[in-house]
Amino acid sequence: MFITVEGMEGCGKSTQCAKLEEYFTRLGFDVLRTREPGGSALGRELRRIVLDPQNTDICSGSELFLYLADRAQHVATVIRPALENGRMVICDRFADSTIVYQGYGRGLDPGMLCQLNEVAVAGLWPVLTILLDLAPEQGLSRALARNTQDKACAAEGRFEAENLAFHTRVRQGYLTWAALHRPRFLIIDAAQEPDQVFAAIIRGLEEKNLV
Amino acid sequence: MFITVEGMEGCGKSTQCAKLEEYFTRLGFDVLRTREPGGSALGRELRRIVLDPQNTDICSGSELFLYLADRAQHVATVIRPALENGRMVICDRFADSTIVYQGYGRGLDPGMLCQLNEVAVAGLWPVLTILLDLAPEQGLSRALARNTQDKACAAEGRFEAENLAFHTRVRQGYLTWAALHRPRFLIIDAAQEPDQVFAAIIRGLEEKNLV
Repeated sequence: MFITVEGMEGCGKSTQCAKLEEYFTRLGFDVLRTREPGGSALGRELRRIVLDPQNTDICSGSELFLYLADRAQHVATVIRPALENGRMVICDRFADSTIVYQGYGRGLDPGMLCQLNEVAVAGLWPVLTILLDLAPEQGLSRALARNTQDKACAAEGRFEAENLAFHTRVRQGYLTWAALHRPRFLIIDAAQEPDQVFAAIIRGLEEKNLV
Repeated sequence: MFITVEGMEGCGKSTQCAKLEEYFTRLGFDVLRTREPGGSALGRELRRIVLDPQNTDICSGSELFLYLADRAQHVATVIRPALENGRMVICDRFADSTIVYQGYGRGLDPGMLCQLNEVAVAGLWPVLTILLDLAPEQGLSRALARNTQDKACAAEGRFEAENLAFHTRVRQGYLTWAALHRPRFLIIDAAQEPDQVFAAIIRGLEEKNLV
């Protein structure tokens, strides 16, 4: 089983991925928790480049291709081998992030982005994508509070540095994209406390007969 | 004027690019000589990654997207601004390398690669592409001799480490691709001495009324 978790900065993706890993491990699954960008060895070099707030001059086309390079390598060397070995994979961000950030956020054509994603994932799509939905003001204030406390996060703040209009497009883009792919998506209100968010995720998994 | 120079490892691209720069500078042009990968600041980081012979596990999809990321950034931040400022640009490798190496060499679909190149170059194509044609045995032996003497070149030997069958596909791919785009290409026999190669290039430029 391959599950991805999506949503804007500060929506609680890492927390919920950790809870999902714990939950499915207790159920007896052999779980691999991973993330994009940076889920492979090459990807960790690329993650540093694409999230470094000092890299202010990366053009939108180049940013797009760096994410796709990360994804192609991640699928080929990490996700596909894990699934083939019978493991469950939970991934923090995946192909939908490209559609939403580079498409709805930066204005690149979502149809073209879908084709590029197909090249990168080579047929491997998640069975479920959990969208943690949050108002951009809330997500940003949470992300900035975290980045103030955590130097590693602050070094990856290139998207947090975008303005509110960008994050509003991202939020609306996620909701639009999820509506267009309803069978695969589970939309969760991420303004609640983490335990409530997780309870809502489990209810959603049950409704979709995935647990 | 935007001119690109193509050909396999060891065919003499750097030497001929330097001669072209000198020639056009003497004619009064303001020449920018650049190269791919690595023509932009971001590109230099990517060049180190894609040409490092230690990186043996880069999958073909990821390799492709890294070159496209390098190209998008190079076009947006270096080549297009130079041309808009009235400069002449001479580039050592460009979009044709992707078609030939990842397409004919690695077996990815050339039609799909053309579409991806279009995203990366955003309409900016060279007026002329000089193909330095050489038997793969000769190119490889020249490239390996150079890499033995020059540590910087040896650190970029990931393609030289490919086998002869790969380089034979690359050579044939270049000739096929050039035949399909005859008006833009000038094919030069690169087995001659450097000065003879350069004289043949200048004759070709004259025949195409470019000088």
